[in-house]
Amino acid sequence: MTPTRREFLNTTAAVSLLATSGLATKVQAAEDKNVNTAFDYQHAPIPLPFDTKSLKGISEKLIQSHWENNYVGAVKALNLTRGRLTQALNDTNSEPYLYNGLKREQLIRTGSVVLHELYFGILGGDGKAGADLRKKIAEAFGSFEMWEAEFRKIGQGLGGGSGWVVLGYNHTLKVLENYWMADHSTSPPRTTPILVMDMYEHAYQMDYGAAAAKYIEAFFANINWEAAAQRF
Amino acid sequence: MTPTRREFLNTTAAVSLLATSGLATKVQAAEDKNVNTAFDYQHAPIPLPFDTKSLKGISEKLIQSHWENNYVGAVKALNLTRGRLTQALNDTNSEPYLYNGLKREQLIRTGSVVLHELYFGILGGDGKAGADLRKKIAEAFGSFEMWEAEFRKIGQGLGGGSGWVVLGYNHTLKVLENYWMADHSTSPPRTTPILVMDMYEHAYQMDYGAAAAKYIEAFFANINWEAAAQRF
Amino acid sequence: MTPTRREFLNTTAAVSLLATSGLATKVQAAEDKNVNTAFDYQHAPIPLPFDTKSLKGISEKLIQSHWENNYVGAVKALNLTRGRLTQALNDTNSEPYLYNGLKREQLIRTGSVVLHELYFGILGGDGKAGADLRKKIAEAFGSFEMWEAEFRKIGQGLGGGSGWVVLGYNHTLKVLENYWMADHSTSPPRTTPILVMDMYEHAYQMDYGAAAAKYIEAFFANINWEAAAQRF
Amino acid sequence: MTPTRREFLNTTAAVSLLATSGLATKVQAAEDKNVNTAFDYQHAPIPLPFDTKSLKGISEKLIQSHWENNYVGAVKALNLTRGRLTQALNDTNSEPYLYNGLKREQLIRTGSVVLHELYFGILGGDGKAGADLRKKIAEAFGSFEMWEAEFRKIGQGLGGGSGWVVLGYNHTLKVLENYWMADHSTSPPRTTPILVMDMYEHAYQMDYGAAAAKYIEAFFANINWEAAAQRF
Repeated sequence: MTPTRREFLNTTAAVSLLATSGLATKVQAAEDKNVNTAFDYQHAPIPLPFDTKSLKGISEKLIQSHWENNYVGAVKALNLTRGRLTQALNDTNSEPYLYNGLKREQLIRTGSVVLHELYFGILGGDGKAGADLRKKIAEAFGSFEMWEAEFRKIGQGLGGGSGWVVLGYNHTLKVLENYWMADHSTSPPRTTPILVMDMYEHAYQMDYGAAAAKYIEAFFANINWEAAAQRF
Repeated sequence: MTPTRREFLNTTAAVSLLATSGLATKVQAAEDKNVNTAFDYQHAPIPLPFDTKSLKGISEKLIQSHWENNYVGAVKALNLTRGRLTQALNDTNSEPYLYNGLKREQLIRTGSVVLHELYFGILGGDGKAGADLRKKIAEAFGSFEMWEAEFRKIGQGLGGGSGWVVLGYNHTLKVLENYWMADHSTSPPRTTPILVMDMYEHAYQMDYGAAAAKYIEAFFANINWEAAAQRF
Repeated sequence: MTPTRREFLNTTAAVSLLATSGLATKVQAAEDKNVNTAFDYQHAPIPLPFDTKSLKGISEKLIQSHWENNYVGAVKALNLTRGRLTQALNDTNSEPYLYNGLKREQLIRTGSVVLHELYFGILGGDGKAGADLRKKIAEAFGSFEMWEAEFRKIGQGLGGGSGWVVLGYNHTLKVLENYWMADHSTSPPRTTPILVMDMYEHAYQMDYGAAAAKYIEAFFANINWEAAAQRF
Repeated sequence: MTPTRREFLNTTAAVSLLATSGLATKVQAAEDKNVNTAFDYQHAPIPLPFDTKSLKGISEKLIQSHWENNYVGAVKALNLTRGRLTQALNDTNSEPYLYNGLKREQLIRTGSVVLHELYFGILGGDGKAGADLRKKIAEAFGSFEMWEAEFRKIGQGLGGGSGWVVLGYNHTLKVLENYWMADHSTSPPRTTPILVMDMYEHAYQMDYGAAAAKYIEAFFANINWEAAAQRF
């Protein structure tokens, strides 16, 4: 069963996390304004939008660990890193190239947080794409099958390492296309991600070992295409 | 003097380039539809939106070379790489990890094309930010000066290597912030770039040698803030 | 029990692999000369130098999968990629930047093959460093404990992603120091690796999930310090 | 004229640099022992081993700027970064992933220092390879011409960005081969570099603008093959 936001905020672990970090009040604050502040904004983790027991071929244990350790861990690291930035910016001993070490960490964690939210956000479905979306994809790729073949091939090539596969719309090129991304900090600029597949080994090793192809199968079976469609 | 698009298409070099690659008809085609096709779309280079003689502290020779060699070169490489994708996708001998070699090149060139267009697109101005934009930036960063200090510091840290500095709006985090980017393939996902500064050495070596700080000075003096404002 | 090289070559899987790729004769050939040829050399996988059942806290299933899928997989990919190089070098249609896509794959796989052999090569021990080595390390790092603290800290920072931790001797700087490495293609030049710890998630997820710290504990308990000492 | 080490240490600029950083005494110290200490070692810049006026097609201005700004700059940054490590290691507030930000900077600067010394170390020659070396290279690559064709092709593919081309001997694979390297932190492990070509834009932009091919020509004309031969 998918918890609502309120239910999520009431679960013990989440409350404890939010309380110790003072995130609870910030969640509300963030919802009240359009732009958060660059240096002191603290992001609050978003709960999984589906019942962790409901995925086909992806175990509750794995998806729970993925959310808690990799995603919430990234949120905490992003918040902590952001907190160091003002301090370092005002430190006259902080050489620009060392400052950029913090900015790099901020970028990696930003990528991890955003991509994980986009990934969890399109899981929990039945894997069946609606006619509209199939048509849009087919128009851009020649056929829906050709899109799927490329998306899967990129994923297979990332097996055994880290990275993401993203179907996204590039606003400069006006192209809907698949992107290979080496890690959290890799991304095409000015692009709206539609469908996002995590290929870090933590997304499948616990269930499938090195068999990345089986995980890709499971990923496709769990896509929530309605959620993906709303990103256009 | 800034050439219009039509004037640009009539210049000898551009016509020759577009003719040999069959881009001319595609330019028109691209303008007629909202989504280009993933595998056979060919991007046409965008002319510089300012008179190449008009920049303060950035020579005509450098900006012309930057546009022709680095930007148009990236467009050509992107088009050529895209052309190889269908062929490789259908090649049963093409291992997924080798296919991803092409996808990586596509990503790098996509980043180069998009970021260069965003960079040239905000040059040619008087460097004075309007009150509205200054206020928006000040709200996000504490003060306009704090934003500028960080933006410049990131740039200085990138001196002697490659990379980009981007002021962008992250749609997931709802934060307007500065990003350090290591190369064309690095980028925060789901982010709208507002102000983009090229820190590859081809952006300044010809005029300033290793003195990246002087180039950053020149960059700030030439910002077209009206153009930047339209990206919000 | 550790198979000898001959025993290894006699196991069914290995023989089958070597036979289909014609590697068997090349293994012998490689042992007979000092320099293999750049374009047509085919590397043969090295068997694990310890009994896969003997590791403390690292399961047979994991270490077997690590060897077969990640290491032998890398060997095969390296061999296949190398095979494509001559062909691409002679192809006048192969743009240099696309050729470099193959060279990048070659570099990544080279790193994976070399680092995995160095990693497996120092496992299977009792985790106790001899007095000589402890002294050398203490001299370079202030104390053996300080070396270990840094080595572990780098490892912990790599948890949840990919990368390597390497204690190595840099021949230019004449320094024995620890290196953080982001992936297979990252490495300090002109450096002899002594102790190598794999921090890709396939090195621990199957046994420990996201608990990278427990894996680091297990890694230290299994170090074969005599083997490491021979690398000085 | 090539200054000897002593002469170099007597030049005003060098003395001033070494004096202010206390490097002068450390140079001597480093020459007296085999292993420097990991945390407090300070590297001293090596003077150029050739007359800066003597290169063919590479201007005095460029090579001087390359040495001073990019190489000596890297030495200073490496020394400063190293100084921060002990402090950060003992700081209980320093999260491992932030500590790794410093280690990454250390790695990048280590690569830059080592590779620049290897690069400058094989310049200043007449570009003519001796019969012995030609034979060794021919044996490894099929022919000397094939080696050169690949080395140049990799370089051309790196034009407009950053990176290195390295002919090196891999001690694990026992292969003499060419490597593509994306930046200072990229490198094949356990490899002895023989011939090293800098493809960062600061190596040629000042003399050749974007014409990387002309720089590659000049590089080949200035190779000191005797120096390269000594690295085998």
